[in-house]
Amino acid sequence: MRNIKLTLAYDGTNYHGFQKQNKTSLKTIQDELEKALTTITNENIVVNGSGRTDAGVHAQGQVVNFFSITKIPIERIPRAVNSVLPPDIVVWQAEEMLPDFHARFAAKKKTYSYTIYNDRELSPFWRYYAYHVPVPLDISKMIKGAENFVGTYDFHGFCAKNTAVTDFVRTIFSCGLEKEGPLLKLTITGNGFLYNMVRIIMGTLVEIGKDKRQPEDVVTLIIAKNRKLSGVTLPPQGLCLQSVEYDY
Amino acid sequence: MRNIKLTLAYDGTNYHGFQKQNKTSLKTIQDELEKALTTITNENIVVNGSGRTDAGVHAQGQVVNFFSITKIPIERIPRAVNSVLPPDIVVWQAEEMLPDFHARFAAKKKTYSYTIYNDRELSPFWRYYAYHVPVPLDISKMIKGAENFVGTYDFHGFCAKNTAVTDFVRTIFSCGLEKEGPLLKLTITGNGFLYNMVRIIMGTLVEIGKDKRQPEDVVTLIIAKNRKLSGVTLPPQGLCLQSVEYDY
Repeated sequence: MRNIKLTLAYDGTNYHGFQKQNKTSLKTIQDELEKALTTITNENIVVNGSGRTDAGVHAQGQVVNFFSITKIPIERIPRAVNSVLPPDIVVWQAEEMLPDFHARFAAKKKTYSYTIYNDRELSPFWRYYAYHVPVPLDISKMIKGAENFVGTYDFHGFCAKNTAVTDFVRTIFSCGLEKEGPLLKLTITGNGFLYNMVRIIMGTLVEIGKDKRQPEDVVTLIIAKNRKLSGVTLPPQGLCLQSVEYDY
Repeated sequence: MRNIKLTLAYDGTNYHGFQKQNKTSLKTIQDELEKALTTITNENIVVNGSGRTDAGVHAQGQVVNFFSITKIPIERIPRAVNSVLPPDIVVWQAEEMLPDFHARFAAKKKTYSYTIYNDRELSPFWRYYAYHVPVPLDISKMIKGAENFVGTYDFHGFCAKNTAVTDFVRTIFSCGLEKEGPLLKLTITGNGFLYNMVRIIMGTLVEIGKDKRQPEDVVTLIIAKNRKLSGVTLPPQGLCLQSVEYDY
């Protein structure tokens, strides 16, 4: 049995998230991927994702693994899968792994980006890939606020209510903001993220940018561990899973 | 009567080009724009575009003008139109012009870009905005080829057959290629462009990049004035009308 790791990108606009749903009428990335892999291998393929992404959320470097007895050479797998996948899902790379590799359990670091389009009118080219903030933002304050998320903390205050998780401690290795023209991009790397965590963090930073909060408030909010005190959850389309790192 | 100039962007993916069609079932940018302007002014608005763009072609800076007796202050017009336009069409700016300004006849320079995604697999995020070339390209040869388009020439050999135009002389002021990661972007400025001209120029440059032609061949092709000898017409989605310049 081969254990194959895939690195893939997808435009999440037309999907109900990564993970397979009970309602089969809701199209997901996992459905499409498993269907394509089943087609090319003639086996019943099930993939393990590094984690779910919500409806409308994108990925540049999602990772999955699956087991198969296919004889397709590893370097030919991306082209073979892409030939049957819809064009909004693209496999970049396939790698042969040891039997114990698991895309979710072996993940050591994940990097997400959240993009804001900060100008009066929203460019039509960014309508599915950024959140529109039409008012001026104090970027230097937002950068200071972002730095305050770095560290190992209980992020209970930055997690959506509806979660099954009980351990809210996560380590954020880096959290930076970059501005390029009207685009404002948060890049955040951590050992894991709670449900809606990046969207709540960016929502809090936008409120800092609007001078409704101060950069130092981030520290207070982390200590408070109260979701109600943190910023709003920004919409999904600005979020993108950039990469997943492994020790393997 | 006010003469109002609009600068606008659009994602051409879901439209049958800029210009109104006889078949009213084919949705165009002009239709949507006129409908929106008619709604906000309560007049029967007709717009003059700087030129048509084909189905699937995009614009970052298309220009139109229209006449109206509306009392809406000029700085409020973009927000007002955008509030009724679909999100794939966005007006950036409105300007009050003299009565003789006409978006097409007064245009002095136009700049187009054509974007190629040059990597083995096409990113899902560029599927509607770039043409995919999966094989390696010799960029330095393409840059040399591009330079050979600069000048005042009869570009009959770089014009689609089905055109009503009789004067094929155009001046190209600049024609440059830039590479950024997998993206290869042609930026070309001229006093006007023939039908499919940019798409045929980029098609020829790709053939130079594949070493099927040499940069010097561009000179020969211009002299030949024979459409059959020039490169293929690339698909519309890579093309974008970047800006239109006026003396006004």
